Amino acid sequence: MKTNLESGKEVNPLLKTIRDVYDNLPFNRLLGLKVELLEIDRAGFCFTMKNELIGNTVHGILHGGVISAVLDTTGGITATASAMERMKDLSKDGVAKRIARIGTIDMRVDYLRPGRGIQFHSTGTVMRTGRKVAVTRMELKNEENVLIAVGTGTYIVG
Amino acid sequence: MKTNLESGKEVNPLLKTIRDVYDNLPFNRLLGLKVELLEIDRAGFCFTMKNELIGNTVHGILHGGVISAVLDTTGGITATASAMERMKDLSKDGVAKRIARIGTIDMRVDYLRPGRGIQFHSTGTVMRTGRKVAVTRMELKNEENVLIAVGTGTYIVG
Amino acid sequence: MKTNLESGKEVNPLLKTIRDVYDNLPFNRLLGLKVELLEIDRAGFCFTMKNELIGNTVHGILHGGVISAVLDTTGGITATASAMERMKDLSKDGVAKRIARIGTIDMRVDYLRPGRGIQFHSTGTVMRTGRKVAVTRMELKNEENVLIAVGTGTYIVG
Amino acid sequence: MKTNLESGKEVNPLLKTIRDVYDNLPFNRLLGLKVELLEIDRAGFCFTMKNELIGNTVHGILHGGVISAVLDTTGGITATASAMERMKDLSKDGVAKRIARIGTIDMRVDYLRPGRGIQFHSTGTVMRTGRKVAVTRMELKNEENVLIAVGTGTYIVG
Repeated sequence: MKTNLESGKEVNPLLKTIRDVYDNLPFNRLLGLKVELLEIDRAGFCFTMKNELIGNTVHGILHGGVISAVLDTTGGITATASAMERMKDLSKDGVAKRIARIGTIDMRVDYLRPGRGIQFHSTGTVMRTGRKVAVTRMELKNEENVLIAVGTGTYIVG
Repeated sequence: MKTNLESGKEVNPLLKTIRDVYDNLPFNRLLGLKVELLEIDRAGFCFTMKNELIGNTVHGILHGGVISAVLDTTGGITATASAMERMKDLSKDGVAKRIARIGTIDMRVDYLRPGRGIQFHSTGTVMRTGRKVAVTRMELKNEENVLIAVGTGTYIVG
Repeated sequence: MKTNLESGKEVNPLLKTIRDVYDNLPFNRLLGLKVELLEIDRAGFCFTMKNELIGNTVHGILHGGVISAVLDTTGGITATASAMERMKDLSKDGVAKRIARIGTIDMRVDYLRPGRGIQFHSTGTVMRTGRKVAVTRMELKNEENVLIAVGTGTYIVG
Repeated sequence: MKTNLESGKEVNPLLKTIRDVYDNLPFNRLLGLKVELLEIDRAGFCFTMKNELIGNTVHGILHGGVISAVLDTTGGITATASAMERMKDLSKDGVAKRIARIGTIDMRVDYLRPGRGIQFHSTGTVMRTGRKVAVTRMELKNEENVLIAVGTGTYIVG
């Protein structure tokens, strides 16, 4: 999992604004999500297992709803980054308002393996991007690189 | 929204066990979900807007991930209830273990309108049920009966 | 299944153009699809079982691909009809070109029961319509009103 | 696109039976599909553009329904191949009956680019396989390796 955000590569102030918006969404904070990858065509979060995220007390695994929520917001930040070329001339406030208009149209999640692990990483990549709609592919892995779930999301971006 | 759980109609002890399990899943508690409808072929939750569930600070609306999470667990409890005929002879512990094996295979969510509101209600209905797999349809409405999102989920039940 | 197309209710020339386009799509003709319902917010096709549509020679049922194809084009005509308010001033040629720009972004199909039957009817209804995107719900039934499959489609309309 | 079927690598008689079944499904023949890749964990078809497959007479591109149909049957043969380890001791007739019980539960298709081309190739890979359910990922490309559509399907295999 690349952490280019920490490696000084993030020269683009727009990416910094997008990261700030997503790091501070109240529900992302409730889940403990932190942006750990953010480029024009891919992005991702990391988060740590904690009791509140459990959906199956017998097996101690992530709630399916945590997984779908993480994949949704991963697709959202990916679609946002892919649309940012058209935001170049906006102020920080303008970018935040623009991001607020980006929304999920629909999403599919495939739950492949139980959500077991200590540290989780999500990644989104752009499959299609246009003036109106972006389609992204998302995946969630644990700290041992086990693929837990994949998803596909369609987002309004224009 | 029927609240047959409170109306004394819940004679089936199995339904009571299922409700207890879902009311007490850690992540359902984090979201503030309460089972408010539970029958053999449909089920639902209610929850109240709070700051932590917001995904769009500009518009003050539900995070898409909250919506997908609620629809996932709504489909889950609906699939569980539909499968419970085969749990009739199990102990309460046996039922809980059996429920723990029920899992989402995949889900689609369609976000139809912004998640605006004070009180939200989800409902799941069974579209297909079998020995191995159940398919459910879910929807989320606010207190004014505005349809916010719909979903379809496929669950392993056998 | 309403057949308002035959009942003289189709006063709108735009609906007639849409019907002509969909009845004459080469692949729709290959399947034997005929528009049998066309209103502003819902539309549908009918078709007859024939050997070429079989996908399971042991059971003699519809190929899953026939079902997905019929649901896709049913959602397409439904999205088209829902978008036609903005086509009012176009010529017949202009409408055809406009329709040609309408396309499926994504679709989910749930196969609920085997595709058994002699005569099949599909129906699409509009779940969400906007300037850019329409979301439709589709279903396929046989002549005994048995629900064989349902689907949800997202279409570019603007 | 590998054509291992022609290269003499197909030592497994079970794979030959599966290929025969899929090559001879009436609807696959109507579309002109030929199995061109068949291994335990991936499989694919090829087909050639012809007038009957057109869904958009203005642009001369594949009907969305052709695309969904090809992806559905591609996922089907992939799920079948992945389940074949449990068919090892069956007769050819037994295998055909077993295949007839494999069916799509649900599928999502994402239409990424217009279905333009002369020769098309689909590929399916296994994402999850179990005793009851297999999940496959499918894609469709044209002769220039342009990715036209992707899909995810869930199949009953047990």
